[in-house]
Amino acid sequence: MFTILPIKGYIDQIDGFFCDGIHAGLKPNGNNDLGFIYSDKPCTVGAIFTENRFQAAPLKHFLQYGEDFKTNFVLINSKNANALTGKKGIANINTLFSQLDFGLVNPIMSSTGVIGNPLPIEKIVAGAKRFDLTSKNGENLSRAIMTTDAYPKTCMYEVKLEDGSSFKIGAVAKGAGMINPNLATMLCFICTDAAAPYSDIMEALKVNSETTFNAISVDGDTSTNDTVMVLANGNSKAYDKEAFLEVLRLVMFDMAMLMVADGEGAKKVAAFEVINAVSNEQAMIAAKALSNSLLVKTALFGEDPNFGRIASTIGASRIDCDDEKLVISYNDVVVFNKGEICFDATIEAKAADVLKKDKYKIICDIGLGEGKFTAYGCDLGYKYVEINADYRS
Amino acid sequence: MFTILPIKGYIDQIDGFFCDGIHAGLKPNGNNDLGFIYSDKPCTVGAIFTENRFQAAPLKHFLQYGEDFKTNFVLINSKNANALTGKKGIANINTLFSQLDFGLVNPIMSSTGVIGNPLPIEKIVAGAKRFDLTSKNGENLSRAIMTTDAYPKTCMYEVKLEDGSSFKIGAVAKGAGMINPNLATMLCFICTDAAAPYSDIMEALKVNSETTFNAISVDGDTSTNDTVMVLANGNSKAYDKEAFLEVLRLVMFDMAMLMVADGEGAKKVAAFEVINAVSNEQAMIAAKALSNSLLVKTALFGEDPNFGRIASTIGASRIDCDDEKLVISYNDVVVFNKGEICFDATIEAKAADVLKKDKYKIICDIGLGEGKFTAYGCDLGYKYVEINADYRS
Repeated sequence: MFTILPIKGYIDQIDGFFCDGIHAGLKPNGNNDLGFIYSDKPCTVGAIFTENRFQAAPLKHFLQYGEDFKTNFVLINSKNANALTGKKGIANINTLFSQLDFGLVNPIMSSTGVIGNPLPIEKIVAGAKRFDLTSKNGENLSRAIMTTDAYPKTCMYEVKLEDGSSFKIGAVAKGAGMINPNLATMLCFICTDAAAPYSDIMEALKVNSETTFNAISVDGDTSTNDTVMVLANGNSKAYDKEAFLEVLRLVMFDMAMLMVADGEGAKKVAAFEVINAVSNEQAMIAAKALSNSLLVKTALFGEDPNFGRIASTIGASRIDCDDEKLVISYNDVVVFNKGEICFDATIEAKAADVLKKDKYKIICDIGLGEGKFTAYGCDLGYKYVEINADYRS
Repeated sequence: MFTILPIKGYIDQIDGFFCDGIHAGLKPNGNNDLGFIYSDKPCTVGAIFTENRFQAAPLKHFLQYGEDFKTNFVLINSKNANALTGKKGIANINTLFSQLDFGLVNPIMSSTGVIGNPLPIEKIVAGAKRFDLTSKNGENLSRAIMTTDAYPKTCMYEVKLEDGSSFKIGAVAKGAGMINPNLATMLCFICTDAAAPYSDIMEALKVNSETTFNAISVDGDTSTNDTVMVLANGNSKAYDKEAFLEVLRLVMFDMAMLMVADGEGAKKVAAFEVINAVSNEQAMIAAKALSNSLLVKTALFGEDPNFGRIASTIGASRIDCDDEKLVISYNDVVVFNKGEICFDATIEAKAADVLKKDKYKIICDIGLGEGKFTAYGCDLGYKYVEINADYRS
């Protein structure tokens, strides 16, 4: 048995972890753009990366260390993704770390921002030399990694085990646009003082990603830099695999929900629950199709209970379905019931009320089996277009 | 040998075809909403339909006739898709035709509009009774089938064969939103007086759809009602299979290009040419991913030569690719060349000039094989959101 308690604060609450963020001159507006995570003891590190075929230079640099290595330092910049930068992109990371005299053990870089520009290493080195490795300023770090994010994304938990020992775990993340099934332009750094072994970290990341980060969508795009990383320094000595898997799922789900709620310009979060599909796989296909559909997203933005778009999107996903079996509900308001149109003015008004909320469920009962999957999406409005029409400037 | 000449006018130019459109009270604004195509001789008819699993009632009704039947009448309404209407939806079509005393042979219905509302058969019957089957008013018909279309979509060709005989072929179509690889909410009626056999019609439709209607995208959605139909009344007696296949490809391409250029709120048409991929299949996957990407579409809207989004989308499509081989160009302006960033201020200005045009190519040379495919997409701006946030009202 174990107990998981949410606690306040940033990852700097965790024994042995230090962090901060500064303005190094990458963002023109003076906001923080460079941050670090430092551990007083080298950490076991596990990460999962984007499935985009053009992995950015920092990802390739990380993978050069091989499996199950230890690190004490992660350097993170925004405004420049160091992606599509060829071999030079990796060489720039090595050059940069060679100029930092921090007693670094296998230092890791992580980047987010515009693709296809050379990394401004002079600015980054000059900035990093101003770091105080004894800082505990999670707030500054969380702001340094933001791009189009409207707010910083963090969470913290303490896990008490049956023997009275405990460990802490928390995350700092960024991600608002380009968020998609199969990761997205999102960076998520999860720190813990649990003595978690590499194999458990990787197992937990893989198992949990399907129902957390891979279940959310803002705009269906997948970036070159997506990273979810776990750093475990073992300072607490406490560890329990079951508890670790469970709390890591919570942390990943929290971060995923914060990202989808911050979908560029988004005001609404919809949980698309597809149930009773022929298989879980088919339920997932339909649920992700719903969370990615532009017509569905714009209807949510318009608070319009246009259930025809929901049904059409399920049909367009090509899963096994039959309109004589399909039931569609907005929360508990049934709008389509097995081929019967039950959408009179009363029902429409009730459904419209559901869509006025910030969060709601759209439940699609396929009626053909027991497969289920929930995907999370947001609305898409004018603000998304405004943000993305000229993101670079 | 044969000659294909574009000619002026609507499908009413074709011998034996009559058409018109009226306001029957379906659209609240008084615009045309009901039209017909009538032939003085029953036509050989071939059609391809949506791949959406929820085929609308008119499609199911058509399919009840079996293969290779003849018809002399197509009734088309807008504002109501008669989709997700269960068995009642098909029964309503039969009821409706039973009340029309036109000497109909296997009459066909085609519908577009909102999904999930019962067909208003009284209004449609009352409207259809006002039809004059000797009308030749293609303009009225073209307006009757519009939904969010900004303009009517038609084309006409005359084909002169080597023996001096000739036939005409033309089309009327609608489609602006929900346009997507694998058809979309689009209706396209192609009429000809060529003596085309059913097997050739079906072959031509299937072969040509891949590079025409299935190569365009407005928003990645696929509707319940998509239809491309060929009606051949044989009045001209002239026929040549090679000429027919070629001119049908032209007609389908014309209609597809008019649709993508009319993507809801769209101002730009981009041809995404993916070349030198490992296979044609992979080229198609990447080209369609580009034409569907929201991040690419919003960058086109912003006239922003953000080639990183192009590259990232190719990578996200999971085709075989390597940034050391990839070359990206906007028309003839190379912006990324095999891992070398060649995007200085001069190049950026030239690329931005290309994006100011109404039409341009974005060429992605994968550099790994000989596969190629061109997909056509449009930009996405505020207007798309405005149109779709509350389409029903």
